[in-house]
Amino acid sequence: MLKIINQLPIDSPSFSWKKTTPGKDVKVNEWIQSIHHLDKDEKQNDWDIVLMGVPLSRSSISASGASEFPEWFRRSWKGFNTYNLDEELDLRDLKVIDIGDVQMHYTDILLSHQYIKDAFHGVTKELAHSFPVTIGGDHSITAMLVKGLKETYPNEEIGILQLDTHFDLRDLKDHGPTNGTPIRNLIESGTIKGENVYNIGLHGFFNAPSLVEYAKEYGVNYITLTKARRNGIRETVEEALQVLAKKVDRIYLTVDMDVLDIAYAPGVPASTPGGMRTDELFEAVFAAGLHPKVGAMDIVCLDPTRDGTVQPTVKAGTHVFLSFLSGFYKRKK
Amino acid sequence: MLKIINQLPIDSPSFSWKKTTPGKDVKVNEWIQSIHHLDKDEKQNDWDIVLMGVPLSRSSISASGASEFPEWFRRSWKGFNTYNLDEELDLRDLKVIDIGDVQMHYTDILLSHQYIKDAFHGVTKELAHSFPVTIGGDHSITAMLVKGLKETYPNEEIGILQLDTHFDLRDLKDHGPTNGTPIRNLIESGTIKGENVYNIGLHGFFNAPSLVEYAKEYGVNYITLTKARRNGIRETVEEALQVLAKKVDRIYLTVDMDVLDIAYAPGVPASTPGGMRTDELFEAVFAAGLHPKVGAMDIVCLDPTRDGTVQPTVKAGTHVFLSFLSGFYKRKK
Amino acid sequence: MLKIINQLPIDSPSFSWKKTTPGKDVKVNEWIQSIHHLDKDEKQNDWDIVLMGVPLSRSSISASGASEFPEWFRRSWKGFNTYNLDEELDLRDLKVIDIGDVQMHYTDILLSHQYIKDAFHGVTKELAHSFPVTIGGDHSITAMLVKGLKETYPNEEIGILQLDTHFDLRDLKDHGPTNGTPIRNLIESGTIKGENVYNIGLHGFFNAPSLVEYAKEYGVNYITLTKARRNGIRETVEEALQVLAKKVDRIYLTVDMDVLDIAYAPGVPASTPGGMRTDELFEAVFAAGLHPKVGAMDIVCLDPTRDGTVQPTVKAGTHVFLSFLSGFYKRKK
Amino acid sequence: MLKIINQLPIDSPSFSWKKTTPGKDVKVNEWIQSIHHLDKDEKQNDWDIVLMGVPLSRSSISASGASEFPEWFRRSWKGFNTYNLDEELDLRDLKVIDIGDVQMHYTDILLSHQYIKDAFHGVTKELAHSFPVTIGGDHSITAMLVKGLKETYPNEEIGILQLDTHFDLRDLKDHGPTNGTPIRNLIESGTIKGENVYNIGLHGFFNAPSLVEYAKEYGVNYITLTKARRNGIRETVEEALQVLAKKVDRIYLTVDMDVLDIAYAPGVPASTPGGMRTDELFEAVFAAGLHPKVGAMDIVCLDPTRDGTVQPTVKAGTHVFLSFLSGFYKRKK
Amino acid sequence: MLKIINQLPIDSPSFSWKKTTPGKDVKVNEWIQSIHHLDKDEKQNDWDIVLMGVPLSRSSISASGASEFPEWFRRSWKGFNTYNLDEELDLRDLKVIDIGDVQMHYTDILLSHQYIKDAFHGVTKELAHSFPVTIGGDHSITAMLVKGLKETYPNEEIGILQLDTHFDLRDLKDHGPTNGTPIRNLIESGTIKGENVYNIGLHGFFNAPSLVEYAKEYGVNYITLTKARRNGIRETVEEALQVLAKKVDRIYLTVDMDVLDIAYAPGVPASTPGGMRTDELFEAVFAAGLHPKVGAMDIVCLDPTRDGTVQPTVKAGTHVFLSFLSGFYKRKK
Amino acid sequence: MLKIINQLPIDSPSFSWKKTTPGKDVKVNEWIQSIHHLDKDEKQNDWDIVLMGVPLSRSSISASGASEFPEWFRRSWKGFNTYNLDEELDLRDLKVIDIGDVQMHYTDILLSHQYIKDAFHGVTKELAHSFPVTIGGDHSITAMLVKGLKETYPNEEIGILQLDTHFDLRDLKDHGPTNGTPIRNLIESGTIKGENVYNIGLHGFFNAPSLVEYAKEYGVNYITLTKARRNGIRETVEEALQVLAKKVDRIYLTVDMDVLDIAYAPGVPASTPGGMRTDELFEAVFAAGLHPKVGAMDIVCLDPTRDGTVQPTVKAGTHVFLSFLSGFYKRKK
Repeated sequence: MLKIINQLPIDSPSFSWKKTTPGKDVKVNEWIQSIHHLDKDEKQNDWDIVLMGVPLSRSSISASGASEFPEWFRRSWKGFNTYNLDEELDLRDLKVIDIGDVQMHYTDILLSHQYIKDAFHGVTKELAHSFPVTIGGDHSITAMLVKGLKETYPNEEIGILQLDTHFDLRDLKDHGPTNGTPIRNLIESGTIKGENVYNIGLHGFFNAPSLVEYAKEYGVNYITLTKARRNGIRETVEEALQVLAKKVDRIYLTVDMDVLDIAYAPGVPASTPGGMRTDELFEAVFAAGLHPKVGAMDIVCLDPTRDGTVQPTVKAGTHVFLSFLSGFYKRKK
Repeated sequence: MLKIINQLPIDSPSFSWKKTTPGKDVKVNEWIQSIHHLDKDEKQNDWDIVLMGVPLSRSSISASGASEFPEWFRRSWKGFNTYNLDEELDLRDLKVIDIGDVQMHYTDILLSHQYIKDAFHGVTKELAHSFPVTIGGDHSITAMLVKGLKETYPNEEIGILQLDTHFDLRDLKDHGPTNGTPIRNLIESGTIKGENVYNIGLHGFFNAPSLVEYAKEYGVNYITLTKARRNGIRETVEEALQVLAKKVDRIYLTVDMDVLDIAYAPGVPASTPGGMRTDELFEAVFAAGLHPKVGAMDIVCLDPTRDGTVQPTVKAGTHVFLSFLSGFYKRKK
Repeated sequence: MLKIINQLPIDSPSFSWKKTTPGKDVKVNEWIQSIHHLDKDEKQNDWDIVLMGVPLSRSSISASGASEFPEWFRRSWKGFNTYNLDEELDLRDLKVIDIGDVQMHYTDILLSHQYIKDAFHGVTKELAHSFPVTIGGDHSITAMLVKGLKETYPNEEIGILQLDTHFDLRDLKDHGPTNGTPIRNLIESGTIKGENVYNIGLHGFFNAPSLVEYAKEYGVNYITLTKARRNGIRETVEEALQVLAKKVDRIYLTVDMDVLDIAYAPGVPASTPGGMRTDELFEAVFAAGLHPKVGAMDIVCLDPTRDGTVQPTVKAGTHVFLSFLSGFYKRKK
Repeated sequence: MLKIINQLPIDSPSFSWKKTTPGKDVKVNEWIQSIHHLDKDEKQNDWDIVLMGVPLSRSSISASGASEFPEWFRRSWKGFNTYNLDEELDLRDLKVIDIGDVQMHYTDILLSHQYIKDAFHGVTKELAHSFPVTIGGDHSITAMLVKGLKETYPNEEIGILQLDTHFDLRDLKDHGPTNGTPIRNLIESGTIKGENVYNIGLHGFFNAPSLVEYAKEYGVNYITLTKARRNGIRETVEEALQVLAKKVDRIYLTVDMDVLDIAYAPGVPASTPGGMRTDELFEAVFAAGLHPKVGAMDIVCLDPTRDGTVQPTVKAGTHVFLSFLSGFYKRKK
Repeated sequence: MLKIINQLPIDSPSFSWKKTTPGKDVKVNEWIQSIHHLDKDEKQNDWDIVLMGVPLSRSSISASGASEFPEWFRRSWKGFNTYNLDEELDLRDLKVIDIGDVQMHYTDILLSHQYIKDAFHGVTKELAHSFPVTIGGDHSITAMLVKGLKETYPNEEIGILQLDTHFDLRDLKDHGPTNGTPIRNLIESGTIKGENVYNIGLHGFFNAPSLVEYAKEYGVNYITLTKARRNGIRETVEEALQVLAKKVDRIYLTVDMDVLDIAYAPGVPASTPGGMRTDELFEAVFAAGLHPKVGAMDIVCLDPTRDGTVQPTVKAGTHVFLSFLSGFYKRKK
Repeated sequence: MLKIINQLPIDSPSFSWKKTTPGKDVKVNEWIQSIHHLDKDEKQNDWDIVLMGVPLSRSSISASGASEFPEWFRRSWKGFNTYNLDEELDLRDLKVIDIGDVQMHYTDILLSHQYIKDAFHGVTKELAHSFPVTIGGDHSITAMLVKGLKETYPNEEIGILQLDTHFDLRDLKDHGPTNGTPIRNLIESGTIKGENVYNIGLHGFFNAPSLVEYAKEYGVNYITLTKARRNGIRETVEEALQVLAKKVDRIYLTVDMDVLDIAYAPGVPASTPGGMRTDELFEAVFAAGLHPKVGAMDIVCLDPTRDGTVQPTVKAGTHVFLSFLSGFYKRKK
């Protein structure tokens, strides 16, 4: 560093870019580490959580900007502390690495799907001790993620806990692997068994009767939101996990943000009236985080371009991530 | 059809407008039939439900685009399936005809009111075996609809179940038959008795004391939202209907969408904080649909022009319709 | 009034500006009196409530237009009646005077703070029999208001009931008396004791761990939203007031509108998912209004410029004021 | 004023409501006087301008909140100075009185129309030396205003300068006196002659061929926006006024804000792409203000409820008023 | 039609759905005929214009809802008359058929592209005497449309008049046939020659230097907006067409709505400051419509989901279509 | 870097975060270098442009989020190429460093002002060969920036070219150094002479008469937008610079984004109807960039929080920066 720059008043209080050493308090953006900013020597760490973005939404049936969510998700971090006041725990004790976004091809959706599967297989194989969280993207990616996971653990039985307003059991013959098909995709490809899927949150008039029939035929389990509320959202999740845990080796949690009520989640193309409240969803994913067999998680179908300037849904999406981590923290610590 | 058109590649997969025969799954727009598209021979059917739009909102006290709701209501249908997952029933088994909108005059409100009364009298007389649902428009239309109904059943006692944040008991002498007056209009015209009105959902600071006095003087029954929640929304509706059923021959259900909380219903000029949630309203109308004496229904005061591009209130309005039909279905089948 | 104006048809029905004598029904804007429109002789009255605006938000950490709230608050009054249907009481029986806004300096925030303290000292001293309500502005003003109150009652112990998503215990050494600091400001200045603060509504990831530590060190009491809901919001408030009442002479209620869920309060820069519902907040302030030791109140951090054209948060803010007055009414009458 | 209030610190700098004597600089809201705040003795003044609001938009063909414009128009004044920098003149030298809004009936549109006619007749008769400006409301009011004017000057020939995207020559037999009919209304009632109407600003695909035919049959003059731009907007207005001035005694200027391009005027239900820019409109009304025979003016069809929170159209509406007054000022001074 | 329906009061004025015979005045929606509503016998007509929708935008580089434009385009028709006031001509004299949308596959973009090419080949072959207008969708479709056209006229030289802010000359090797590639796609596939492309409207910082180089290397002609304005937009278009007409047999006009300034076209993902005004664009396409060699047209990249509730860009898109038809009308009649 | 990370498939195409070497085409975000990402050895370079953010808007008279502009400015870069198509030049040839934001204090505005002055003095002294561009923040910062510049060049005469709708000559005695005062601040502090200020763009009713008087008394030069358009915007700027260049040693360009018309710049609290178009502003700053004596520049008063999700004003702000640099490029190269 030559003289001319040395003489810049960068030690004066005028410049904010001279970062001070982080103290006790950090924001989420200061806590999660990006692979871009790691020094080489740091990369050897065992991470508790590995975070990966999948900016794909051309596979969505209706037009969606969910591909923008990974970027807005990261951008929202500075509005959150690491301290969970309800649970009196500090997520800072977890080591989290953000390995960036999986590369997408703009016009070859199946190739993008292949990239997703390969990336998730790589991550779960190479960082086997880290818990992987994927930020979508639309729901089509879940099929590829679970397939990638299955590639890593070919002998394991994988179960799905799905928080969703929809079954996502559409026929792939109609339009290929859209965001309406991931669960069917997994069943038909033999990756999972229908009976090892637990869907919580369905309600209203948002699923076609043929999908209900398919669910029944293949033993897909579902608990409507009304029933889940009657038993308690948290209790319902716990019971589903308990039953599922007896049948499978590893549980994959997929959160379709359209499970939320449209009043809470305007920024999801398929959110509906009569859906879940955000506090219920936070409770549900916290419970899932606690369970030892829950081994991977994704958050999908959140479209920040519909979320206005106040961004309630983006903030809810980030809170889902942190609430889940809080459960995970209590499981681990 | 001549040769040149025959040769158009309309049998090729390129063209989407060649509708395939509907299979098991239909959207609400594919299920409800429009009178415009009926072949003549079909018109003889006995319809379960007859649907009619009333695009009038110049009678609203404050500026309102509720006249646009019938159009947006129909447009929203393609976002809904016919299958009710909570009740596990398929509304497709009901035959529904949409007979279009009642004609409105642009500057003579009383003439428009006359048209509404005549149309509803005609519908309830000629299609006596069909359950009529009217889509407003502002609340002033309810007075005309019930008057038309009374004309069809002059010897019957008619009761009202009203879901509303307001009494709608304003004095007609002040400004004529506005959307603040329909219940008073019906009482003063002798169409109904005050004691046969049950209003559920009032709360807060949205009714003048003189209206409360009027309600008390004429025996209008009202249960505030707070009290209804304490007893259970559904139970409150059931009890009101039970009491009412003993006193009247036929019950008219009127849903003023301003009963909803403003967080759930931004697209209603008079929605307020502290109002009902959509899931509560769906439950309430479902319960009403079940009751054998409920004989007609309207949905009013929803202004799509205030609802932004996400349209949460329009979607809630359509859901109210479908939730009611679900109750009706269970009553009938 | 000379001839030419006399001949204007102002007695004809054409002109609306000829106000008729108010009847039984008034809107809030017709009920609350402005000091500007008082005739001199009227000013001698004993007011039940004295209302004061504080249009300051340059002290907010993030950019905020909360300085606009006093104006929008007043503008929203015409959408509210004085009659509380839930409690069947008419606030008209209370005499309320709006003494306008405290003057602000545009670039000297500490001077504005001084004005606030002086004004509130003046108001509480000269109108000692009136209950003072202050409309902010951001939360930094609460420190000045309580200091002004302390000046009026130097020998009293003052307690704080705070409805908030945050502690507001940030260190003043960092950036001076921002909206993140008022409670610490009051503790450090010796105005109040930490143990006499009860904060209800905290939740999630919105407070740094150092603030929790500070709260614990200084005995600041806090009940998270989850816990408050478990006990009942109203019961929680009542219990907090009961305990507090034993320790202090006078209780100051401060309502930070960011305690509300972002779905209910888009118009608050710091509202979050997982927050309070408006009906819960109305219940909480009603309970506070009932308590005889609650002696002053403020509503802060509501930014109307973020509230869109539907203005749900502004309406909620006004409802908070009226719900509190309803409790106050029942205490007094 | 009793002692207790005297002791309030209202002379301290803390209170902003103590208005200081206006100095050289005033905002438009400090300059225009409201009839409500006049002392009786002041009312004898000869006003240069008399301003009247007409909050009617139920007569609009499509749903419109133009009835809200008088209120938002007044509210926007504080964003404008009285000094016109382009013309280096200060409108403060003009005396302007705002006599408030004409009373409207909520459901009897013809009665509201009658009130408008009567009010404007009264104003133009009793305040004959004042220039009357009317703030709508939708365009239907222009027919009533000109009829009221004609009643005041029964022997005069009245001409119309209309800035509009439409002819407003629809047939009254279809739907009565809507906002699509005012010019035809005036021609058919014999109030004006078709040949004495000059419409500037029409363009595109926004007028039916039958209206063009009617215009031609009755000699209504029209200059499309394209032609007006070719000659210069200002020159076109001047030439139209020059020709018109030879034929009539008094010219009425009506500004339908839908003459503006939709990019400049989102807050007008019928604004279109391809319309006028605001700077062109300001130039046009300035030129009209200069002409000695222009004897009344209205601004109509601006719906603030469509204008978002930035309110570009409301601000443009107020600027139209001030630009016109600038021309008027130069004519008078 | 059986008795029960016969007795419905459908001949009474109450029902609006009884369409009256169209008179002289029609709206665009009443004029353009849909293939769905044609009686078989009508289908033999020679149509002047054949209109086709292409709801594809998954091929867009950035997230886009341009797939929704065909639907919103049709929905906007009722806001337009057929009469062009500037040109004093009535488009009703043209016969226009809307043959609906080309079918799209949800996840196989290349298959959708194939459908587009096939459909357009079919249309231009079978309806050879009709002028085809295509409504996109994103700009990737233009490559397929021109290829389909080339299939119909394999021996013709085709030229392109492109109104655009971008070259659309990106390398297909990077991400396949996105909306950034259509012109390069056509050049590289030998469908057209670079020298037969005229791009008008480029400006600012929205094209990479490698694209400029490619344009120069392949002789793609471009006139920046600044230069076009200097010569006159209309004159620039006329000159480009004149030169092009000497070199090619048929000219294809492609209108990328991102050529418009972002103030005029918020509803285009890639619109920019410094772009064209709508009146300039209307003038440009009118001039193109006049030219005898212009043989097909498309309008692309308009995303109604970004256009708010006022929909200025959708309206501009429809106006572009009608302005072009006006030129076409004058060419033909 | 240990083995486990080495084995991550980061060389596979799945991962997008593995940045490839930049080729010929770069976006603005890839071109401008951040001081944070510089290797130490690079810092010795001679930068052509040094960019600095000033996130201050608490000094704004009306509530403003202009403090957010530096962040949104940087975020918008990825939507711009470095190649200027109008001028056929590539800004990449300029070396630009972004040194981040000046630190602000949250409640001591004068201290923040001091920081700004010190920082700009430091920058202009230490990086004397770089052209400094400052991104505000509100207009109050201009006074501090020019004072800092004067400190660096105490013996120089500095002139101001101001593009603005306002004079910014308010009296500092009223409310201290707000965004309404910077020019007066500079004159009264003796930093510049009134006669060396040239303000272009004033219009309408947005300046009080006392400010005009002050301008005249102190010789501040101003050319209204109307006059500037008559002479040509570019010519007006060139003439102003030519005259100014004879009187001063160095010219400071300050661009208040409120000079723009509100249709083009909704995201500026004080933008107005009748203002400049963006293409005119781009032309103006390009001309300024060309002039050899223009030695520093700022862009102020742009509030991204008012700019909706389409962000037309943020994009315009970035374009202003790039247009200026294009002129600067031509001056240098």
